[in-house]
Amino acid sequence: MQDNAASGCAEDDKRFMNLALLLADHAKGSTFPNPAVGAVVVKNGKVVGRGATSRWGGPHAEKNALAQAGARARGGTLYATLEPCNHTGRTLPCTDAIIAAGIRRVVASVKDPNPFVNGKGLRKLSRAGIEVSVGLLSQESTRLNEDFFYWVTQKRPWVTVKLAMTLDGRIADAFGESKWITSVASRNFVHDIRRRHGAIAVGRRTLEQDNPKLTVRHGKIGNPARFVFSSKIAVSPNSYFVKNASSNSRSILVKSGGKACEKLKLAGGIEIWRTGKTGRAESLKAFLTMASEENITSVLVEGGGSLASSFLENNLVNRVYLFYANKILGGGLSAIGFESPLALSKCMMLARVETMQFGSDTMITGIPETR
Amino acid sequence: MQDNAASGCAEDDKRFMNLALLLADHAKGSTFPNPAVGAVVVKNGKVVGRGATSRWGGPHAEKNALAQAGARARGGTLYATLEPCNHTGRTLPCTDAIIAAGIRRVVASVKDPNPFVNGKGLRKLSRAGIEVSVGLLSQESTRLNEDFFYWVTQKRPWVTVKLAMTLDGRIADAFGESKWITSVASRNFVHDIRRRHGAIAVGRRTLEQDNPKLTVRHGKIGNPARFVFSSKIAVSPNSYFVKNASSNSRSILVKSGGKACEKLKLAGGIEIWRTGKTGRAESLKAFLTMASEENITSVLVEGGGSLASSFLENNLVNRVYLFYANKILGGGLSAIGFESPLALSKCMMLARVETMQFGSDTMITGIPETR
Repeated sequence: MQDNAASGCAEDDKRFMNLALLLADHAKGSTFPNPAVGAVVVKNGKVVGRGATSRWGGPHAEKNALAQAGARARGGTLYATLEPCNHTGRTLPCTDAIIAAGIRRVVASVKDPNPFVNGKGLRKLSRAGIEVSVGLLSQESTRLNEDFFYWVTQKRPWVTVKLAMTLDGRIADAFGESKWITSVASRNFVHDIRRRHGAIAVGRRTLEQDNPKLTVRHGKIGNPARFVFSSKIAVSPNSYFVKNASSNSRSILVKSGGKACEKLKLAGGIEIWRTGKTGRAESLKAFLTMASEENITSVLVEGGGSLASSFLENNLVNRVYLFYANKILGGGLSAIGFESPLALSKCMMLARVETMQFGSDTMITGIPETR
Repeated sequence: MQDNAASGCAEDDKRFMNLALLLADHAKGSTFPNPAVGAVVVKNGKVVGRGATSRWGGPHAEKNALAQAGARARGGTLYATLEPCNHTGRTLPCTDAIIAAGIRRVVASVKDPNPFVNGKGLRKLSRAGIEVSVGLLSQESTRLNEDFFYWVTQKRPWVTVKLAMTLDGRIADAFGESKWITSVASRNFVHDIRRRHGAIAVGRRTLEQDNPKLTVRHGKIGNPARFVFSSKIAVSPNSYFVKNASSNSRSILVKSGGKACEKLKLAGGIEIWRTGKTGRAESLKAFLTMASEENITSVLVEGGGSLASSFLENNLVNRVYLFYANKILGGGLSAIGFESPLALSKCMMLARVETMQFGSDTMITGIPETR
């Protein structure tokens, strides 16, 4: 068989990069604070190695794929969803491993915006005589690591807001009941959204009313960190949040105010963060800086409506997932409420809107932007 | 060419019925109170006649298609989106014309539920030795005339509610502004929804705030009747509704109360209907009966939210179109509000949900059902 891959047949390139994307997607959520990367080694048109980013401290995707390929990598092509690193962190540079393996051509989907890399990896490969190209399926791979790219350049976690509401925009009925608004199919997808995030945040009232586990039900080793925003230090000692504080993920209570930002760890495992700020916007911003310092690259705000609305109103949200359940209540609690509602001429809009159906539920996602 | 149509090739049958549906769809809204029907005559695999229902009093679709086909109809197949009529109304029965033209085979999409027809047309054709089948693309043709089928069997107009809201369920911002929530693409589609209806209804406040023309901007001869629901007889003399009362469609003011239902016509062309009922539900039901008697087969309730909500809450709505504009306001007027909001466990749901995208707006339509 002809080595289409090495000769750069566009169709084959796309197919192998899609495989790399699939491997990356599978690893998403278990590589923090590293980005989730997929890599494929192809020799004579055949896949001889596959790899994805290991858990933090383990080898990167490229090295995992090269290890699987072994001697077959020589003269082959390596596809990676992200530019290979050229800096020594917890592991030796991937560029060195690629050169040592005798790879002839590297197809990277996007440059790594991490200031430690940012094109240096590709330049190093090129100087070593390797044919290098970048840009294939870049939209897909950028979307996959949008949170990491944001965090590594902005020093602030990527914030996602998820809200499940009725067709008339309610997150609870007039009697306070909110379980369940959406269908099982939608809720399964929410678990998939969760596993992609480094942390999950809820308000105290949601904790008390729903006693959520805030865990990921499938496909992930370890759980996202749990944040509960509360104006009081005390939360119900019977909540899952408190009882499982030290089990397999962090449980952090976030409170505004205090003289300066501080992080405490209590007996039992619960952590207390004081933001040192009293204003809502300022306190949320301080929280995001504190989370970024802990290498938390993304936070999924799951509710209630008032916590989600605070993040939204203060332009701190990078992506929303709005689930519209096939239900009409005609009253109840509105999903989104701002302290200062916007005028139609100055409203918030979503860029890059995508929709999905989950049974008879509709999901709309996009990037919030203000005019 | 082989006469696939006459021999009943499934693929060809579908193709010709789809053409008949297209013709029917084009006529929709200009045939009241008749259903919109399309018909195609095929001979030796070739379309030799096309027809759709004429305006009321003119020939039906089948006769129009047969007239175009002329002598070529002999031995051919006739496709019709609805069972051909066998009763003499304003026109002679279509069945007689089909038999006289020498048609060999008739493919009808659905039986006509009109008690005057209801299978009698197909039986008459069959007895005349014509091969008859029914059921092809019946879902599509039923959807096309869902309003007529409802009206002719239930003696009540089909009621559609259309609401355009933001992603957070608002139909106006906190400052009362509601123009425009949705995009131009969505609003163009609304004109297409309008042209399919026999009448359009709004509340008095919508009339006063928006001064809507309630007309159809494209593709239709004549406009739907205009209903304005008001607790007062007086409406602004400067409104389009009053000024154009006698132009090309009826302008009817609907008011609850009065001793009995009555219909008056004022100088200037405006009509006044008193429902004779005071309770909201009873008054709306009486209105629907009055409209049905006037051969109004469908009413599109366009707003405001309170009129739409009244119809919804009283289970008088047959279909909703909910447009979600790509906007977040964080406050303002909720699109749907019931006098007695429902509990989550007893909420209203939509059957047969369909979604469409108009630019970055999302439209959800379905049939409201209560548990």
